[in-house]
Amino acid sequence: MSRGTGAVERSAGNGSEPARSKVYVEGPGGIRVPFTEVRLRPPAGAPSSQAEAPVRLYDTSGPGGDPGRGLPALRARWIAARSDTEEHEGRTVSRRDDGRAAVRRHVGPAPWPGPGRPPRRARSGPVTQLHYARAGLVTEEMHFVALREQMEPEDVRAEVAAGRAIIPANVNHPESEPMAIGQRFLVKVNANIGNSAVTSSVEEEVEKLTWATRWGADTVMDLSTGPDIHTTREWILRNSPVPVGTVPVYQALEKVDGRPEALTWEVYRDTVVEQAEQGVDYFTVHAGVLLRYVPLTAARVTGIVSRGGSIMAAWCLAHHEENFLYTHFEELCEIMASYDVAFSLGDGLRPGAVADANDEAQLSELRTLGELTDLAWSHGVQVMIEGPGHVPLHRIAENVELQRQWCHDAPFYTLGPLTTDIAPGYDHITSAIGAAVIGMHGTAMLCYVTPKEHLGLPDRDDVKAGMIAYKIAAHAADLSKGHPGAQEWDDALSRARFEFRWEDQFDLALDPETARAYHDETLPAAPAKTAHFCSMCGPKFCSMRISHDVRRMAEERGLSPEEVVEEGLHDKAVEFVSAGASLYHESPPRPTPTG
Amino acid sequence: MSRGTGAVERSAGNGSEPARSKVYVEGPGGIRVPFTEVRLRPPAGAPSSQAEAPVRLYDTSGPGGDPGRGLPALRARWIAARSDTEEHEGRTVSRRDDGRAAVRRHVGPAPWPGPGRPPRRARSGPVTQLHYARAGLVTEEMHFVALREQMEPEDVRAEVAAGRAIIPANVNHPESEPMAIGQRFLVKVNANIGNSAVTSSVEEEVEKLTWATRWGADTVMDLSTGPDIHTTREWILRNSPVPVGTVPVYQALEKVDGRPEALTWEVYRDTVVEQAEQGVDYFTVHAGVLLRYVPLTAARVTGIVSRGGSIMAAWCLAHHEENFLYTHFEELCEIMASYDVAFSLGDGLRPGAVADANDEAQLSELRTLGELTDLAWSHGVQVMIEGPGHVPLHRIAENVELQRQWCHDAPFYTLGPLTTDIAPGYDHITSAIGAAVIGMHGTAMLCYVTPKEHLGLPDRDDVKAGMIAYKIAAHAADLSKGHPGAQEWDDALSRARFEFRWEDQFDLALDPETARAYHDETLPAAPAKTAHFCSMCGPKFCSMRISHDVRRMAEERGLSPEEVVEEGLHDKAVEFVSAGASLYHESPPRPTPTG
Repeated sequence: MSRGTGAVERSAGNGSEPARSKVYVEGPGGIRVPFTEVRLRPPAGAPSSQAEAPVRLYDTSGPGGDPGRGLPALRARWIAARSDTEEHEGRTVSRRDDGRAAVRRHVGPAPWPGPGRPPRRARSGPVTQLHYARAGLVTEEMHFVALREQMEPEDVRAEVAAGRAIIPANVNHPESEPMAIGQRFLVKVNANIGNSAVTSSVEEEVEKLTWATRWGADTVMDLSTGPDIHTTREWILRNSPVPVGTVPVYQALEKVDGRPEALTWEVYRDTVVEQAEQGVDYFTVHAGVLLRYVPLTAARVTGIVSRGGSIMAAWCLAHHEENFLYTHFEELCEIMASYDVAFSLGDGLRPGAVADANDEAQLSELRTLGELTDLAWSHGVQVMIEGPGHVPLHRIAENVELQRQWCHDAPFYTLGPLTTDIAPGYDHITSAIGAAVIGMHGTAMLCYVTPKEHLGLPDRDDVKAGMIAYKIAAHAADLSKGHPGAQEWDDALSRARFEFRWEDQFDLALDPETARAYHDETLPAAPAKTAHFCSMCGPKFCSMRISHDVRRMAEERGLSPEEVVEEGLHDKAVEFVSAGASLYHESPPRPTPTG
Repeated sequence: MSRGTGAVERSAGNGSEPARSKVYVEGPGGIRVPFTEVRLRPPAGAPSSQAEAPVRLYDTSGPGGDPGRGLPALRARWIAARSDTEEHEGRTVSRRDDGRAAVRRHVGPAPWPGPGRPPRRARSGPVTQLHYARAGLVTEEMHFVALREQMEPEDVRAEVAAGRAIIPANVNHPESEPMAIGQRFLVKVNANIGNSAVTSSVEEEVEKLTWATRWGADTVMDLSTGPDIHTTREWILRNSPVPVGTVPVYQALEKVDGRPEALTWEVYRDTVVEQAEQGVDYFTVHAGVLLRYVPLTAARVTGIVSRGGSIMAAWCLAHHEENFLYTHFEELCEIMASYDVAFSLGDGLRPGAVADANDEAQLSELRTLGELTDLAWSHGVQVMIEGPGHVPLHRIAENVELQRQWCHDAPFYTLGPLTTDIAPGYDHITSAIGAAVIGMHGTAMLCYVTPKEHLGLPDRDDVKAGMIAYKIAAHAADLSKGHPGAQEWDDALSRARFEFRWEDQFDLALDPETARAYHDETLPAAPAKTAHFCSMCGPKFCSMRISHDVRRMAEERGLSPEEVVEEGLHDKAVEFVSAGASLYHESPPRPTPTG
C-alpha cells in the first residue's frame, strides 16, 4: 500500500492540542495528502505509553482560508508541468450569464473579488486523467489518490485506464484535492447545494459548501437555478477543495428565459464552455432521454421527476426531434476532453416513486447511457453513470447488475435510492437505507438526500443531517466490501467504548459534538467521562463488567481468558466477582484519574 | 382477505373533521379493529367526487383515556369465555418488589390508583394462542389480527400453530389489542422504555409508552432497572394497548441487591410469577448463555454487551455451574404456559461491535436457542428468538438463514443490527439500515434503537426519532416482501405528490407535522399548499410538468398518452408546451381553489 515517504507534517503543538487535528502525509514529488488524525488516550490510570496509535481518517475539509481570496492552486504546478494545456483569453462573460434578473435590472452581482486567472484548455487532444492512465502515466493526481486510499498508485492508474474509476480534475479547478470515484475505492458522497428562484444567496451557498466538506462531502454539485448563477459558481469553485459538478442545462434554460422549447445546441455549448473555463469538474448530461422513451413515462405514478430529464423531454416533444444532447454528443465529448470535465450521464427518466422502479423507461435510458459511455471513452473523456431515485429494497441489486453490465463497469453514482415514499421529512433515512445497500452492491458514489427532500431547499442543519446519514451509508458499504482500513475505524471506536475511554469514543465519532452532547445530557459531570458505566445500566451492574473481570483474572494469574474459565476456578471466581462487585455496588460515580 | 363485516364505525363528524381519524372495522363476534383513516382531497379545482378513496393505516395508538384509570379490558370477555382460566388470590406484593430504595426508606411508591382485578391463571395445561391454534381454534385474537393484516383468519391460525408467528397475549393483560409477530405478517417494531438507577420517573415512562404507540410501536419493553419497578410496570401494563415485554432478571437482580452471584432460581421464579400475574406478554430469557460459551467471548473486541447475558455469565462463573435458566427451563415453560407469556429467547452473547459479528460465541448460543425453542413448543409456549446487535451489511443474510434453520422458523426479533460502530449519536440510522435489510430477509420484529444508544437514556424526542427510523425500516422491508397492501400507502402518497395535493401528501406522511413544517419553512403561505411547484425548482419550470402536459394533451384529444407522442403531434406539441409554459413562467405562486 502507498503509505508515502512516512513523513508527516503537523501543526506545532503547545501541550494542549485538540485530540483531532489535520496532518499531511508526504508522498513523491512534494505531494501532501491531508488526513484528520485522532490521538487516543491510555485507559484510565494507565501510563500514556499504553495509549493506542492515533487513527487517521479521510479528510475532505480542505485547507480553509478567506473565501474572498479562494484556496491555494494545489494542482497548478502539476497541470502546467504536463505542458499539454495553454492559457487563453477565453469566452467573454456577459451579464446574461448571471441570469434573467441581472439582465432585467441592468446590473450583475459584484464579481468574484479574488485573484483572476486566465482559463486553460488543451493545446490539442484530450488532457484527461483517462488519457494519461491509458498512456501508462501515473499522474500526481493518481499518487495523491493512492495515498488517500491506501492503495498502490499503479492500481489507481489501472482502474482509471479501464474506465472503472474517474478522478474528476478540470484543469481550471486547480484548487481541488484529487479524489477517485470507483468501485474499488472508498464509497464517496456528493452534497447538492445551490440556490433556486425562491430562496438563498451567494454567501449561504459558499457556507453550505464549506459546511458540507467539513462533514465529509467528497464532491459538491452546484444546482443553482436562481439569480447570479455564474458568480455563485465562481465563488464555489474558488473555495472548493473537492470536485464540483453541475447540470449545465439549468443555466442554459435561464439563458432562454426558462422556455425549454427555446433551447438550442448553441446555447447549451456556450454554457458548457463557460462552465468548463470556470473549472467545473463534472457535468450531468441528460443525453439518454430519447424522444421514443418519453411515452414510456406516461403511465407512471409520478411521470418524469428529474428536472433535467423533464427539460429535455419537453424539448423533444416540442420539436418532435431527437434530444440535441444525444445528436451532438461527440462534439460535447471534444469540448469536455480539452478541459478534463467528466461526464455524469444523467438519469432523466429515473423513477420518482417505488411503483416506477426499474421500469421500461428507466432501463431503456440506462441502455442508451451504456452506448454513450463507449462513445465518451473513445474521446478520452471520463464517465460515471447516474442512477435512481426511488427503488424498493428487493430491486436494488438488479439495478446495479444491469448498470455494470450495460455500462461496462463505469462508476455508478446514485441518488439514494429512497426505499419507500411514505416518509417526507425523513428521506435522508429512507434513502440512506437504499444508499448503503446499493453501495454494498458496488455503487461508487452516493448523492445525499436531506430531510427537506420533496419539501423545500436544505438549510445548514439539513446539509449536516444529510451528510451524516450518507457518511454512515458509505461507511457501512465500505465495511461490507472489506475496503482496506475501513474496519480499523470501527474497531478503534469499539475498543474505546469497551474500555470506557469516553473522550476517545467521542473524538472518533463521525460527529464528536453530538456524541458528547448526548452523553452529557444524562451524565454531565466531568467524572462521568471516566466512569466505568453509563446511564443505561447505571453504576450498579454494567453489562460489560463481566468481560473485564475475566480479563483481569487472567492477567493476575498469567492465564489466557479462556483458561480462567476452562480451569474451573470456582472459588477464585466467587472471590473475584464479589470483590469486583464492590467497585460498582451502590456507589455514586467517583472521579478516576486519567493518564 | 379478511375485510370484516364491512361495517365501519367513525366518530361523529362536524363538517370540519381532521383528515386523519381513527375508525373501527367490525368483524365477527363484535370484534372492532382500529385503523387510522386518511381522507383524501380531489385535485385542485376538481369536484370532491374525484377524490381518491380514503387510505387506512395500521394503528397501534389504542383508545386512550385517563392513565390513572387504565384502558378498557378489550379481551376480558374472550378470555373468560374460553373457561380455561380462573381468578385466584395471587402472589402477595411486597415492598421488595419495588426495589432496594423502597425497602431502605420503609415506604413504597403510591400504588396504581385504578380498579384492581385478581390475577388469572390456567386451570390446568396451557392457555396459549399456540395451544389453541394447534387445536384448530381460531380465537378472537386471531380474527382481530386477520382483519388488521388483511389476511385470512385460517392463515393466521396456521402460522401460529406452526410456531412461525406468535400473538403475545397474557390473560392478565386484557387491555392489549391483539397483534402478530411472524415472517408472513407486517414487520413489527418494539420500543424500549423503562427507568434506570440514574434517571426518570413513573409519569415519564407512561408518557413514553403513549408517545411510542402514537408513533407506531407494536410492542414496548419495560426495561426498568431503577426504583419502583413493580409499580412502574403496573402503570405501563394498565395503559398499554400493545403487548409488553420485560427482562425478568433485571428485577430479580434488584431483589438480591444487585449481586449477580446471589441470584437463585427461586428468586427468579418468584419474579416471573409476579410479572406474569401483572400481565407481561413476553419475557426475554437468557437461557442460552451456557457456562462453556462464556470463554468464547474473552477475545472479543467488546466482550459481552447484553446486560442480561452479562448477569447470567457472572452467575455461571461465580458458581461454576450451568445457567439456572437453562437447567430450570421446563419449569419456566410450565409457568409461562399457564398465563400465555411468550418467550423472547435472549441473545446474551450478541456482538457489541461489527468485529464480533457472527462469531462462535454468538452462533453457539443461537444453536442452543434452537434446542430451547423445541422444548418451549413441547410445553405449548409461544417463542420468538432475539438477534443482534452489531453486524456489517454483508453478514446479515447469513445470520437470518442460520436463525431460521436452527430455530425452525420461529420469529426472529432483532436489535437493529447496527451496520457500523462509528456514529454514536446517530445509531437510529446506523441500525435502521441493518433493520431494513434484516427485515427484508425475514426478521419479524425490529427492536428500535434511539439516537442516545451507547450514550444515555432516550427522552421523548429520542423515542420519536427511533420510532420513525424503525417504521421506515419496517415498511421498506414490507415493500420488499410484497406484503399485501404495503405499497398502496406509497402509491397513494406518490400520486398526491405528483398531483400537487400537498395537504394529502402531508396527511399520508409517517409524520405529518414534520412534513408540513418543513414545507412551510420555505413556502409558508397558504397558496403554496396548492401551488403546482415546490421550492426546489421554483415556479419557472417544474420537473413534473412535462408529464402533466402529456396527460392533458391525451385527455383533450381522446388519445392514450403513448399515442400523443407516437403520432408525432409536432405542431400541437409546440403549441401546447408554449401555452403550458405560461402557467409557470415568471409568475409568483397564485392561489388555486380547492374542491
